[in-house]
Amino acid sequence: MKAYAMVLEEFNRPLVMREFELKPPTDGELLVKIEAAGVCGSDVHMFKGNDPRTKLPMILGHEGVGRVHTISGSWEDINGDKIKEGDLIIWDRGVTCGKCYYCAVKKEAYLCPNRWTYGISVGCDRPPYLRGCYSEYIYLHKNTKVLKLKSDIKPEILVSASCSGATCAHAFDIVSPDIGDTALIQGPGPIGLYAIVFAKQRGARNIIVIGGTKERLKMCEEFGATTVLDRNSTTLEQRQEIIMDITNGRGVDLAIEAVGHPSAVSEGIKLVRNGGSYLSLGFGDPNGTVTLDCYYDIVRKNLRYQGVWVSDTKHLHMAVNIVLDNKELFKKMVTNIYKLSDATKALLDMENRNTIKSVLIP
Amino acid sequence: MKAYAMVLEEFNRPLVMREFELKPPTDGELLVKIEAAGVCGSDVHMFKGNDPRTKLPMILGHEGVGRVHTISGSWEDINGDKIKEGDLIIWDRGVTCGKCYYCAVKKEAYLCPNRWTYGISVGCDRPPYLRGCYSEYIYLHKNTKVLKLKSDIKPEILVSASCSGATCAHAFDIVSPDIGDTALIQGPGPIGLYAIVFAKQRGARNIIVIGGTKERLKMCEEFGATTVLDRNSTTLEQRQEIIMDITNGRGVDLAIEAVGHPSAVSEGIKLVRNGGSYLSLGFGDPNGTVTLDCYYDIVRKNLRYQGVWVSDTKHLHMAVNIVLDNKELFKKMVTNIYKLSDATKALLDMENRNTIKSVLIP
Amino acid sequence: MKAYAMVLEEFNRPLVMREFELKPPTDGELLVKIEAAGVCGSDVHMFKGNDPRTKLPMILGHEGVGRVHTISGSWEDINGDKIKEGDLIIWDRGVTCGKCYYCAVKKEAYLCPNRWTYGISVGCDRPPYLRGCYSEYIYLHKNTKVLKLKSDIKPEILVSASCSGATCAHAFDIVSPDIGDTALIQGPGPIGLYAIVFAKQRGARNIIVIGGTKERLKMCEEFGATTVLDRNSTTLEQRQEIIMDITNGRGVDLAIEAVGHPSAVSEGIKLVRNGGSYLSLGFGDPNGTVTLDCYYDIVRKNLRYQGVWVSDTKHLHMAVNIVLDNKELFKKMVTNIYKLSDATKALLDMENRNTIKSVLIP
Amino acid sequence: MKAYAMVLEEFNRPLVMREFELKPPTDGELLVKIEAAGVCGSDVHMFKGNDPRTKLPMILGHEGVGRVHTISGSWEDINGDKIKEGDLIIWDRGVTCGKCYYCAVKKEAYLCPNRWTYGISVGCDRPPYLRGCYSEYIYLHKNTKVLKLKSDIKPEILVSASCSGATCAHAFDIVSPDIGDTALIQGPGPIGLYAIVFAKQRGARNIIVIGGTKERLKMCEEFGATTVLDRNSTTLEQRQEIIMDITNGRGVDLAIEAVGHPSAVSEGIKLVRNGGSYLSLGFGDPNGTVTLDCYYDIVRKNLRYQGVWVSDTKHLHMAVNIVLDNKELFKKMVTNIYKLSDATKALLDMENRNTIKSVLIP
Repeated sequence: MKAYAMVLEEFNRPLVMREFELKPPTDGELLVKIEAAGVCGSDVHMFKGNDPRTKLPMILGHEGVGRVHTISGSWEDINGDKIKEGDLIIWDRGVTCGKCYYCAVKKEAYLCPNRWTYGISVGCDRPPYLRGCYSEYIYLHKNTKVLKLKSDIKPEILVSASCSGATCAHAFDIVSPDIGDTALIQGPGPIGLYAIVFAKQRGARNIIVIGGTKERLKMCEEFGATTVLDRNSTTLEQRQEIIMDITNGRGVDLAIEAVGHPSAVSEGIKLVRNGGSYLSLGFGDPNGTVTLDCYYDIVRKNLRYQGVWVSDTKHLHMAVNIVLDNKELFKKMVTNIYKLSDATKALLDMENRNTIKSVLIP
Repeated sequence: MKAYAMVLEEFNRPLVMREFELKPPTDGELLVKIEAAGVCGSDVHMFKGNDPRTKLPMILGHEGVGRVHTISGSWEDINGDKIKEGDLIIWDRGVTCGKCYYCAVKKEAYLCPNRWTYGISVGCDRPPYLRGCYSEYIYLHKNTKVLKLKSDIKPEILVSASCSGATCAHAFDIVSPDIGDTALIQGPGPIGLYAIVFAKQRGARNIIVIGGTKERLKMCEEFGATTVLDRNSTTLEQRQEIIMDITNGRGVDLAIEAVGHPSAVSEGIKLVRNGGSYLSLGFGDPNGTVTLDCYYDIVRKNLRYQGVWVSDTKHLHMAVNIVLDNKELFKKMVTNIYKLSDATKALLDMENRNTIKSVLIP
Repeated sequence: MKAYAMVLEEFNRPLVMREFELKPPTDGELLVKIEAAGVCGSDVHMFKGNDPRTKLPMILGHEGVGRVHTISGSWEDINGDKIKEGDLIIWDRGVTCGKCYYCAVKKEAYLCPNRWTYGISVGCDRPPYLRGCYSEYIYLHKNTKVLKLKSDIKPEILVSASCSGATCAHAFDIVSPDIGDTALIQGPGPIGLYAIVFAKQRGARNIIVIGGTKERLKMCEEFGATTVLDRNSTTLEQRQEIIMDITNGRGVDLAIEAVGHPSAVSEGIKLVRNGGSYLSLGFGDPNGTVTLDCYYDIVRKNLRYQGVWVSDTKHLHMAVNIVLDNKELFKKMVTNIYKLSDATKALLDMENRNTIKSVLIP
Repeated sequence: MKAYAMVLEEFNRPLVMREFELKPPTDGELLVKIEAAGVCGSDVHMFKGNDPRTKLPMILGHEGVGRVHTISGSWEDINGDKIKEGDLIIWDRGVTCGKCYYCAVKKEAYLCPNRWTYGISVGCDRPPYLRGCYSEYIYLHKNTKVLKLKSDIKPEILVSASCSGATCAHAFDIVSPDIGDTALIQGPGPIGLYAIVFAKQRGARNIIVIGGTKERLKMCEEFGATTVLDRNSTTLEQRQEIIMDITNGRGVDLAIEAVGHPSAVSEGIKLVRNGGSYLSLGFGDPNGTVTLDCYYDIVRKNLRYQGVWVSDTKHLHMAVNIVLDNKELFKKMVTNIYKLSDATKALLDMENRNTIKSVLIP
């Protein structure tokens, strides 16, 4: 039995369709048939060679939902449910050691130095080869944390919970709005859309989004944004005035940066109230510097400027629950569905920002 | 090569010295020569058949410090230090699955339903047999979290960090005093002594201990208690008056129950201020009920009555650090050292409360 | 100018309508025309003489929304908005000293020993007399924390935020569900209904309510309960089975007791998962005891049994925001509107449990 | 009766000794005889005209310990103790409104927009004139939070708790080390010395200080620093290597910036481990900018870069307790005692960094 996958062999060159031999899993692994693979912004970074973690040749794809095909050993999901062939599952894309300072002492598994990620930091040149989601099948290592899904959820709706959703959940796990707070979200892409729903479900009353694309901002309103500000039709001063007006002159309690550009940081920090939090999660690769006034921007403001890096199983669990609670919304987020063999086109379309969330269906 | 261990074959009967074949470890296990094994109150419960987790035949002993003898596979400690033969180590006595709701989502590994404990919940009737610390050697499962120690610490001083210390750390991980707070500790045994040091190292100013043994209360003062109250020479009303006097009439901010008797809970809850916390960790086995007035004891007081169950690696790390920072104190706590072959005597002495902390040296 | 108010002169006797002279406020006080006064369960306790705080003669009513009539000095609301005559406002029913251990050090103003409450702990036998909401007018002391409202909200919808809503907010301020958690709510009265909305707005996925009245349970479903269990048509075992089924056999992550009877505590604690929280806020007056097994119910479960007493301005702010975000729902909660002069009837109807939330309109 | 005070009339000119009429306090104020006034780094900033809050003419001095002389009204201290003439007291230097978003909703009184500070933001040109500590007497406004002291503490030892100590307490209230953590402190002045003791009393095991003055670093060791690094005899690379060596290559868990120069921020952030916290509190006035790489310094590190601005009563309470628990240490910190009339010399000596902590005794 054979399976094919889309392999990144050279940066900036079309992915190559390769065939792999499909053997029964060993060593307590799980062989899973991919039902949907998400195309993430980081995939474009890797495709272009901008992400230092990338190893060639590699099967891209760290967001996946699939159906269990064959089981080695005995598996339970997070909830202690026995995993059986045919079960629909999602999994934590990062595999961690469970025994280090970050995993066991600090309980910050997302920082585990031994963490590796399907479709990001593992090549397809050694067994079991299939370790990315741009593929018909994937082998899951026995340390993978898995969550069983009811079969009535469409895989393409849920797949973004793996990465965009979980990373956003991580931010809200670090700092959550109080009931009645005002949250600012910069960047109306998938992370920004998740941030709207998280902010709403944690009790924020005013949810302001700054973005540059009309269609995306319209979708933000459908997702629950109470104010959307178009970067292209407002000045920085106008945006500041509007936001101060909404917040009794204080600034927002919490801001989420989901842009990945230093200019967003410069603008955003000034829009946060004294004592508020600025959470930055949009930087998937090195993209420049920001210059801050130590006194005015940080100390006098009593500001928290917080970086947010990837996620762990707690965050995946949060993200999956947010999606299951808001299926109709997240269905709208999936703007493009491609055949697996069209993966290169999906990457190029994403680079050109013609899409919000794209999904590959093998 | 052979090793002997002290085996509990029948409840309430002397432990039996048994010989086991010593084979090289496999499956990524670690073979460790025990340097010191702590005798814990729970060991007495198990010896008497009061702990429902006990499986016969079993090698008792869940507190251990040892030296690495042989290594299967590649091992690193919590800090990422390569583990080598001859290293002095301590380890988390509980082995957890890392993949369940408690481990991966809630980060409360101490509640993992798959958790098993050396010397508590694993018999010696199946390979690798040696899974308790009342033994010359022990095999550590590959999922065990290990911490390397510098060789200048005496094993018998540190061994109590495994269980008494880590469980107490768990309590202070849940609720820690603010700088300047007053803490009450009920029970001047090993957990109570740890609690004094934790309270002091977290910034409590007044540390009050209630106990019934003069020698133990004297040791509490050496450990940092600022007030000790002898249950046998004061009435409940007198203790209450003294404590209210110290706390401006409010009661203590935080109380630690390390007694294991319902009468302590009844007394202690009334000594906590409105809005304070009562942490109960002294119950190692079922030992009766407490009757509380829902309005006066809980709601009107805005009280937190919190159970504390066992511990995880974070807590072990806290406990080891407390001991290393206070070696001279914890040296005093070890009142009795026995040869391994005298384990039964050590259990009986502990039952008769003639000891504070006893340690077996193989 | 005169104003009348409903005065409790003797326990269990009809309130007496009394007339008071209306003088301009002095000492920085605010004279406010009451637009709506909530009838709270505690009012019935006071009416019957069961609340030890009650002082006769007294104008009942601690939940109020009103319009500013005359101002002494200069007033700003919580948000720094200048308060002007004609403004619609709500206020923190408790007035605290701001300078004590609870207010200034622990930031738990709800426990301030100098706290006094409109309509609860202040008689009408000394100036300025009008200190309760069962009245045409009320004088607000200058230390009162006030929040201005937009005029498009109906006072009767918002008035319960003062007490039921704020107390419930306090519970969720102490322990909030994680995204995806399961919450259990005992008691489908006003606090229980608030708890449903808070649980939902903090991200709980499963919200289970146990109650004894069909109509109330139906309203719970409209408010967002995902499962309702009728005490009268299910056994304790059945309820336990259903809840374990929903929670993968673990029990709920969080339970809110809004019943005020010890039997609820006994049942509820057993329905919480290991490591979960049981928050008790339903006891407005002494109402019996609960007997707990120290080991099984508390320590082995690692349970948090937490009392929740009244509230402070943070909680009022949370409650007001929840109502403003869910106006249509909270409109449904107001089942009975009475003329101020019918206050006694309102109390008797509440005692007979014919109402959910009753409001007096002067 | 008359009292004299040292008045700042023009920036950069000697303070002028002025005489004021001493009238009995009114409006619930407290007249206090100053026993010790601390000279703070901010006083130098104000003296030189660099602090935008300064109003001329003004009596400097926001750190004070004094003895109650005359009382208007009835006063209790934080603990509910009646205040009497002759009592030794310390007080929160900031007076806040208690009714705004920051005071009442967010419980961050240090950010109260109505906050004013003795000796900083109130001139001596209007009654009651005496509002600074560089004076024989001071009038305390009735909203001032006061703490009574036992008479056996020397005022000069405790006076720095008012500002340096409380601000440092604020940092440790925001982020406290876990037991066993490593803390880095930049700047061995009064805040840095407090930080050492706070770090130690919260359980940090390794406490590293970077500074530029041998004598100060020596004092840091006496205060509990486990490693001191002299900026003048080590390179940045050497310091980094030493710190990585101590922390298993991770970097410190927590860093406290008490320098007030951007170069410290640049160096310090790189010394914090992934997931760690960098708390900046050394900037008392605008002093330049820092340039950070959004990806490497913040997001990839999952770093918390946190500003810390002034303090509130909770922090004063923490600081007083730390000093009372470590009297001998803090006695050493007071390197210079001046007569009140030598205040200008005290300021100039501090500017020239010849002192650690200076105190004026009227």
